Amino acid sequence: MIPAVVSGDRRALARVLSVFEDRREGVDSLVAEAFAAATPAHRIGITGAPGAGKSTLTDALVAEARRRGRTVGVLAVDPTSPFSGGAILGDRVRMQRHVLDEGVFVRSMASRGHLGGLSLAAPQALVALEAAGFDPILVETVGVGQDEVEVAAQADTVIVVLTPGWGDGVQAAKAGVLEIGDVFAVNKADRPGAAETVSDIKAMLAMGHRGDWVPPVVTTVATEATGVVEVWDAVTAHRDHLGEAGLEERRSARRRAELSTAVVEGFRQRAAAMIDVGGEVVADVEAGRMDPWTAARRLLAAD
Amino acid sequence: MIPAVVSGDRRALARVLSVFEDRREGVDSLVAEAFAAATPAHRIGITGAPGAGKSTLTDALVAEARRRGRTVGVLAVDPTSPFSGGAILGDRVRMQRHVLDEGVFVRSMASRGHLGGLSLAAPQALVALEAAGFDPILVETVGVGQDEVEVAAQADTVIVVLTPGWGDGVQAAKAGVLEIGDVFAVNKADRPGAAETVSDIKAMLAMGHRGDWVPPVVTTVATEATGVVEVWDAVTAHRDHLGEAGLEERRSARRRAELSTAVVEGFRQRAAAMIDVGGEVVADVEAGRMDPWTAARRLLAAD
Repeated sequence: MIPAVVSGDRRALARVLSVFEDRREGVDSLVAEAFAAATPAHRIGITGAPGAGKSTLTDALVAEARRRGRTVGVLAVDPTSPFSGGAILGDRVRMQRHVLDEGVFVRSMASRGHLGGLSLAAPQALVALEAAGFDPILVETVGVGQDEVEVAAQADTVIVVLTPGWGDGVQAAKAGVLEIGDVFAVNKADRPGAAETVSDIKAMLAMGHRGDWVPPVVTTVATEATGVVEVWDAVTAHRDHLGEAGLEERRSARRRAELSTAVVEGFRQRAAAMIDVGGEVVADVEAGRMDPWTAARRLLAAD
Repeated sequence: MIPAVVSGDRRALARVLSVFEDRREGVDSLVAEAFAAATPAHRIGITGAPGAGKSTLTDALVAEARRRGRTVGVLAVDPTSPFSGGAILGDRVRMQRHVLDEGVFVRSMASRGHLGGLSLAAPQALVALEAAGFDPILVETVGVGQDEVEVAAQADTVIVVLTPGWGDGVQAAKAGVLEIGDVFAVNKADRPGAAETVSDIKAMLAMGHRGDWVPPVVTTVATEATGVVEVWDAVTAHRDHLGEAGLEERRSARRRAELSTAVVEGFRQRAAAMIDVGGEVVADVEAGRMDPWTAARRLLAAD
């Protein structure tokens, strides 16, 4: 299937992504094949609070990328409720206007609860999009809590989308958002307070600067495509700032992190199996005859 | 140290909790000793949105328990920012009015980021509080996202604290909160909309009832201790409803889950060590010569 993906077959790509997402038979060899066929693209993460306008900005950036002759992959990660198991946003129809454009490919993926998270399927999906030749690839999240960090970890350049009034939030939470952004977009900038929010962000960035890249803060009205060129330019500037060496450094760290996640996931499956066949020790724990932590050490020592 | 804890030495208890929290030398044997000395208490979880008044209600419930001659342990879990590594709330002084009361013991514990979470230290701390003879034990969280679920998993009875206007939120998120609550407190009930929120909750509970316990919905003004007796009575009724058999069932499932978490945590450490000494395979992954997922399978197969 991967040669078809490489040659531009969109239906093959969709099938491959489904195999990755559902962990179907053959996923391992397909992943390895996709990796071998992939050329790393510029991965742009888009995160921020719900309602900030991330989807609209993503849509506008896709249009801008197309205007510049680039083909664009979009991976939209919907958070899955830890309670209901269903994606909050479901299969909303996204970015309708690009639907007939062969140079754009959009895929939604549910993040699977607490520990699965983006851990395996999403990074592998990005590799498949790279095998299909898309560059850049936009990774968007609905962004509640941890997912933001995970998306940031998948991207070379992270756009944080905020809105006027954001400066009123909790200081610590703000610090966290500031840490992950390479480019800041103050969206809905036609609303009151945009200028104050821009200066708030700049002031906070000036206090806690990291390295020699000063993240640009751009005002946008994504619904009218205002400021989108500026965001694009800021993203491109960040990529140029990283250079091939900086990009390769990020990719290398990312691959190592993916290896770590995959090893942990393998062990997690082993742990589940271990407890399923745990016999007497597990029975002792359930009955309260042995504490769970001593029991865990025994099971691990016997492995 | 555990005999001292059992005999009521509060400083010994504080030291033991620090050993658990910081994973200090000797933690394993202390945990096993505490477990052997502990009699399970009624564990009451208190969760809900930030600002709903959980701390105030916890404080009022402590006073109510004391009026009834019970000794009370409180474990307050502060979420730790995944970004900054520091607890958002820091070492705020909590429940000052109980500070001279030997029958009350309050401990704050930072939840450690993404995967550590409440996974080891908090369940072990609850065992230590049980060894010290406290009953009930209140487990309160500042409650953002996943922590709510984790706290619910630690409790026999879960109180969900909401405020008027809660009914206006996102449907899916509401369903999640409804699933974990055994008792609902609509706090700040002197504000407009309390009655509507009560009927909203009741209507939603009626749609998705689980088993034969119908969670009571109580209105409170925790700052004035209004409705606190009713919450206490509802919590007691839930405990009576569970009975010893029901409680033991919950405890048994909890111990099994704790075993599972501890085994996974052990494997996680093994995974980290494996990658630290991973040699050629890790180098291949970092350089992009081998995909991380194939590499993970090789490392796991060689283990």
